[in-house]
Formats: sequence, C-alpha cells, structure tokens
Amino acid sequence: MNINTPLPAAVLSPELIARFTAIVGERHALTDAREIEAYVTEERNLYRGRSPLVLRPGSTEEVAAICRLASEARVGIVPQGGNTGLVGGQTPLNGEVVISLKRMDKIREVDTSSNTMTVEAGVVLQTAQEKADEVDRLFPLALGAQGSCTIGGNLSTNAGGTAALAYGLARDMALGVEVVLADGRVLNLLSKLKKDNTGYDLRDLFIGAEGTLGIITAATLKLFPKPRAVETAFVGLQSPEAALKLLGIAQAEAASSLTSFELIAEIALDFSVRHEGNRDPLQSRYPWYVLIELSSPRDDARGALESILERGMEDGLVDDAAIAASTTQSQAFWKLREDISHAQKPEGGSIKHDVSVPVASVPRFIAEANEAVVKLIDGCRPVPFGHLGDGNIHYNVSQPIGADKAAFLARWHEVNTAVFDIVLRLGGSISAEHGIGALKRDDLPGVKDKTAIELMRTIKAAFDPLGIMNPGKVL
Amino acid sequence: MNINTPLPAAVLSPELIARFTAIVGERHALTDAREIEAYVTEERNLYRGRSPLVLRPGSTEEVAAICRLASEARVGIVPQGGNTGLVGGQTPLNGEVVISLKRMDKIREVDTSSNTMTVEAGVVLQTAQEKADEVDRLFPLALGAQGSCTIGGNLSTNAGGTAALAYGLARDMALGVEVVLADGRVLNLLSKLKKDNTGYDLRDLFIGAEGTLGIITAATLKLFPKPRAVETAFVGLQSPEAALKLLGIAQAEAASSLTSFELIAEIALDFSVRHEGNRDPLQSRYPWYVLIELSSPRDDARGALESILERGMEDGLVDDAAIAASTTQSQAFWKLREDISHAQKPEGGSIKHDVSVPVASVPRFIAEANEAVVKLIDGCRPVPFGHLGDGNIHYNVSQPIGADKAAFLARWHEVNTAVFDIVLRLGGSISAEHGIGALKRDDLPGVKDKTAIELMRTIKAAFDPLGIMNPGKVL
Repeated sequence: MNINTPLPAAVLSPELIARFTAIVGERHALTDAREIEAYVTEERNLYRGRSPLVLRPGSTEEVAAICRLASEARVGIVPQGGNTGLVGGQTPLNGEVVISLKRMDKIREVDTSSNTMTVEAGVVLQTAQEKADEVDRLFPLALGAQGSCTIGGNLSTNAGGTAALAYGLARDMALGVEVVLADGRVLNLLSKLKKDNTGYDLRDLFIGAEGTLGIITAATLKLFPKPRAVETAFVGLQSPEAALKLLGIAQAEAASSLTSFELIAEIALDFSVRHEGNRDPLQSRYPWYVLIELSSPRDDARGALESILERGMEDGLVDDAAIAASTTQSQAFWKLREDISHAQKPEGGSIKHDVSVPVASVPRFIAEANEAVVKLIDGCRPVPFGHLGDGNIHYNVSQPIGADKAAFLARWHEVNTAVFDIVLRLGGSISAEHGIGALKRDDLPGVKDKTAIELMRTIKAAFDPLGIMNPGKVL
Repeated sequence: MNINTPLPAAVLSPELIARFTAIVGERHALTDAREIEAYVTEERNLYRGRSPLVLRPGSTEEVAAICRLASEARVGIVPQGGNTGLVGGQTPLNGEVVISLKRMDKIREVDTSSNTMTVEAGVVLQTAQEKADEVDRLFPLALGAQGSCTIGGNLSTNAGGTAALAYGLARDMALGVEVVLADGRVLNLLSKLKKDNTGYDLRDLFIGAEGTLGIITAATLKLFPKPRAVETAFVGLQSPEAALKLLGIAQAEAASSLTSFELIAEIALDFSVRHEGNRDPLQSRYPWYVLIELSSPRDDARGALESILERGMEDGLVDDAAIAASTTQSQAFWKLREDISHAQKPEGGSIKHDVSVPVASVPRFIAEANEAVVKLIDGCRPVPFGHLGDGNIHYNVSQPIGADKAAFLARWHEVNTAVFDIVLRLGGSISAEHGIGALKRDDLPGVKDKTAIELMRTIKAAFDPLGIMNPGKVL
C-alpha cells in the first residue's frame, strides 16, 4: 500500500515550468506550496501527494498543448477534477504536474429535442443536475460528493451512485466524449447519437480509465424525462435475505420505476442517528433497513410503492415501513443514508471496501464477511450498507470500541484480503464503483483475469508509450 | 466497393487442413464446396465469398486451438454466427477459413436471482428470448432476423432492433463476454456484476468490433422483468415533424415504458400491404405513420397510451389511430413493419442506408435526403422507415418504376455519398446498427474522426499483429 508514503520532491527546471506556465498564463499556473496544498491532499487523508506545478487550463487546446509539452519533456501528469476520488487516483504521488480541469466549466450546449447536454469536464455534477432541471429534464447521476465532484472525474472513474439501479453508471449516461491523448492529439467523439456502429467503442475505453489513457475534456450527456412522482419508503426488516426477496417484489411491481434500493445495517442507522442528528424514521429498531425510491413519469408511484410494501408484509418480509409524506421527509430519509460514512468517524478508524457480488449473493457475502473480519479482529464492528439492487455493498468495518485507531488501520490490508477472498469466491469485484487508483493497484493482478491484465497493459503501452498519463495508477 | 468482386481460390496445404480438421473432428470440418456454399453466400446477394475450409468448433478450447494454429500458419479466419449480417462482415472475401460458432449453442446458466443468463455465442436470439420467457423474464433484444441470428453475432455487431429505445443496444444487454484472441488466449470477462470498476472496459471493445479483435465465444446477458401489459398503437399523421412532437409527448407520459416508436412512410406501408398481404390498420391513408409500443410491469399501459394519443389529437398531431385490441392485432401491426424491407423486392432494386442523426434532426434529414436522391435519379422512390426514437432511419431508395435494376444498383455508391453527406452535416452516423463490415469499410476514413481511426488502427495492430482476424473488415 502507498498510503502516506513520503514522496521525494519533484524536479522540474525553471525553464520547463516557464514553458508550461506560458500555456495557461501566470494566473493559472500554481507553484506556491500553500496554493498547491489543496491539490495534493484529499478528504480521507489516505494520500498526501507532492507536486511542483498545478496547471489550470481553460480550454481543450490548452490541455492539448500541456500534453504535447509533457510528452516532449517526459513529465508525468495527473488530471484532477473535484478532487473527491476515494482511491487516490487524483493525487500526484510521484511529484507529477497536476492538471486541474476545474476552469473548464462551460456548458457548451443543452439540446432538449435530442435530450442531450454537452459540458466541459470541469462542470460540477450538481450544476449539471440543476441545468437539466431548468429545462424540465433529469440528469440522473447522484452521489454524495455531487456538490464538488466534476463530470470529467465522474466519467474517468465511471461513478455509480444511488440511481444506478434504474439509470446505470456514469458510462451509461454519456453519449460521447472529447479526449486529449498523451501526445496532445484531440479525439473528438462528442456525439448526440444513440446509435453509432462505426468501429471500435473508444468512448468506453476512456470512461473508467482513471486518466491513465487520456484526459477527458468534455462529454455529451444523456438527459431523461423528469419524473412527475417520486415516492420514498424506509423499511425495517430482519435480514439481507428478506431485503433481497423484497427487491424481487419491487422489481416485478415497479420495473424501471424502481430507482433506488439501498440496504442499511442497524449499526449504520444507529451511527447516523447518534452522530449526525438524524431521526429514526421507524418507532422500533430492526436488524436491517432498506430505503426504496420509485420515480414515475405519471402520478402512480405511490400506488406501486404501497403495493410493494403490502406484498412484502403479506410475505412476512417487511416488519415496519414509513412512506415519506413530503419532499422534506424524503430528503431526511436520504440524509440518514448519505451521512453513514461520515457518521463512522466519531467511532474511530474504519477500514473500507467498495465491493460488488452477484445480487443474489449479497446475503451470503455479508454473513461470511462478518464472520471473517470478527474472527480476524475481535470486537471490530462491520457497518455494511449500499446499493443492494446493484449487488454493491460498501462494506466498512469500524474499529473495536476503545481500540487504538492507528493499530486498527495498520491491519487495513489484512482485512481487505479476508474480505476480497470472499468477494472473489462469489464472483464479485473488489471495486464496484470507486475504481482502482493507487489504493487497489497492487491488488488488481491477484483478482483480475490474467489475459485482461495483459490486454490492459497492451492498451496502456499503445496509447501512452512514454507512461506520462497518471503514472502509478490502475496498472 | 467490394460488392461481387470475384475472388481467387485460397491455398491451404492438405497438411494444414488436416491439422485444422483434427481440432474439431472430421464431421465438423467442411471442405466440400457444396457444403461450404451456405457459409460464403448471404441473403442480400451483395457478397459472394470463397473458403477452402469451414470449421465448426464445439467449445471455447477448440476455438482457441484454431486461433493458435491460424496464428502459427498466418491464415486469415472469419468468425460467423447465423450469417444474417447486412454489411458482409461474416463473409470470407479473401478465401479465409470460416469459423462457424453455431455448434456452440449451450445455455450455460440461467440465474433468476441475479437476473442473468450465460449463453454460448451460437445460441439463436429467439432461443435466448424463449429461455428468458420460460423463467418469467424478458431478454429484450428483438430484430427481424431473430429466428436465425446468434448472440455472438448480435454482440459482435452491437445489434439494435425495435426495443432499443427502452433497453438499448446489444452492448447494453451484456454484463460480460468470453473472447478468444488472435493468438488463442482466452479472455474471461464473464460476470454477473452490474458494477465492476476494476480497470479498462475491455468488454465493450470486443462488442461491436465485428470479429476483428477476437472471437466472442460466450456472454452473460441481462434479464429484465417481463412486462405485464404491452399496448400497441398504429397512428396516422402528416409529417415526420408531427411524429417527432408526438415522440416528445410519449416520452414525457410514458418514460421508460415507451419501448418502441417506429416511423413509417406511406410508401413503405403501401408496399407492405400490397406485396406481403398485410392489412392497413387505419381506414384512410396518411403521409406518415408511427407504430408505438408501451410495456409496463403493471396494468396501466393502456391508460398511458390513450393519454398520449389524446394529447396528440388535441395538439393536432394525430390524424387517426388504432390501438391493438389483442396480441394477434399487435402482431399484425408489427408484421406490417417488419415486412417493409422484404416488400421492397417486387418493386425492383433498393439502395439501402442504415443511418442515424440526432433525434431532433430526423425530419430535416428525411426532407433533404428525399430532395437529394430524386435530384440524382429522377423517379427513384425513397422508402424511409425506422426507429425514430433512436434517430435511426433505414433510408432505403427503391428504383424508378420500370427502370433497369442493374443500372440503378450500379449507382449505389453515388446515392450513398449524397445521403451520407447530409447525415454527416447533421452530426449523424453512416452506420447506426448494422456495422461497417466490408460494405462501408472504404467510407469509414471519410466520416470518422481522424484520431479515432488512428486509435482503432493502434488497437487492431496491438491485438492482432498478424492481421488474421476477419481481415479486410471495418479497418
């Protein structure tokens, strides 16, 4: 693990710094360590990078010029959006030049006839959501960091979030991308087309590549009809098995109207209530909860939701349920869910996993992982929650009460290994939505098909022969 | 154009034929020209290939062994599924060895908890649909050739079809693939995971690559909840503009329940009625028609469909409409639509285009293309129809009445050029769903981003350095 490894200072000649600076202009080239600080640290404090230079280009042409010069001088570059990544992918761990895309925040076009929106990489996700809302459309990507993460970062990491069940991942919401390659060539795949079978799918190669193959500078996004009715329920139940059966009922009743189906362990609710001031939506405590959301273009979501809950009660799956009576109440349900990760902080260290398994295997995964981690560290407290409908569990483990935080976190890799073993046995993935970055780079060869790794290396070598694009990440 | 170019006989030593034969067994290695005939011809008679050897492997291991030997001997190979492709991608135009995947027709697993089905490449699309239906699920890929095309071919060409509006293309229905590479390595990306962000998206590189990067031997497909209610309407209206506005209403009312929105020109309906014995669903004739289908998990599709048609009438968009009263009637509407292409045959030669433009530009595309082709060939008859909701029009042009068929077809390229010019000006694609194959190979460099072509060549060279995989196709 590279966590908190001290890094050597990078060496960049004054002449080279001057040439890079000339591309973006003095104002947008940062060399002062205090100004650079925000670009080399990240929220979880897992990584601390070092960089001699942060460039803030304002256009695709400037990004291309930076890449040309970086290639010429063989200087490593790290593209960065909102700096909210969770696997260190955006951090300059080897003294690379940081290219912040945040100034490229123009919405180039909104086309309501084609239901598309073309935005630059630095547009903040929430701004994109609001822009869609203004024209009576929905841009459905939604996640905790939406107030600061950017579209470029969302696409580079193929972000998931809470509406992936109905709308898919970031990949599924992009029709086209504009990418600057390592040598400065600009690949224009911006397109409003829903169907285009003219050759290899290059778009999806850059989406999720975490900036190691090129820098996404713009994207054409899909817009969706805005739902007229959104209904949210908070449900108490006995087990992940019961939640899985309820998911089956919800999918049969609501199909694509089922936009979220989030599983929450009691301990996660308890933390969120105690540390974040959230209200428990139900009168009693239950071992497990699900947060269900239905979105419908018509006004019939309530009926469908009630019918799901009724069938769930008849089948003995649902112990209690509250349907949000207002938008405010619905937001309160969601806040309780979104606050879970933050609510773990007062409980000490947390070892985190963003894993997925086939949906049917989620109950077995949680049971086996719980057993394994407690066997490894007596008294540690699993805090599983996440997107049951996608088979994606954020399997976090809080330290034992009163234990030493640093000593607990030192066992990160050991706990990972135990959890990943179960994930792999069940045909799962060690990174469902956060990516590989630096955090899981060393784990990748052990969990991925050997030929897949070989092909990834083949592609990396062909696209970035000098190895300047986000070095040390993913591969 | 390679159309009907005579090909030299291929030379393969008896020893090499014996070694290939030993891999699959005598029974499954065809060398008799009469037996080979079905594999080197195709339905449209646009292409006639030649091959010394057709191999019918029964397993992934056999496909891998064939590829290893082909690499060693530097023999070109052409993978083939149901041989229903429309761009010559499946035809051995240079005397290559054909690898027919049709014997690999096992359904490896159906998992209703994870809503997935893992099938071999040779499974016929309709068989996959039926298998899903048996377990009360939907596999939504649907197209004219579904009785004979195979899943491997569907994925290799990224097939579209009539339900793409709601469910996407073949790409969107596959969670994972198994691929044999040029050198015989087997890439196992079979997965039941909805979310897996562990490295580059290799899956989507093989989907739509038309067998030029590897041979897809199996896939894990998504299953969907089976709709409880399906409602179909046949609508008469005045113009593509009116159809486009009605599409907007339908999307707002029905959102993802809107599974099909097919545009049909009067002449297309006329051909289908006169030559295929179909009944005109409406009492009078209209310049344009749309076939609308809604699929809902609940029983409310009829209400939504009626509401769409009512709003369409209020807004003066809909002149007349018939809602199918039974499954039989709905099938009759669909048969009228599906028969259009075949119904053109008695009218003489037809020059075909499978193009897409941004949805909003469809009316303009049709108007401009009609003007251009009639200007080029006096009396020729445009027969536009297709998936308006995807911006995908099958812009076919029937010959002038009484004209010489061969002389008309000789102008294929000239007509293509005129139509493609308009498509490109509108930001469209010259191949929406059929692919590039041999038919559009020479057109590709003129219409695709230059850097995209360069990257495609880079990938091809890296994955298939000997150039043995489906040579002469796509690139």
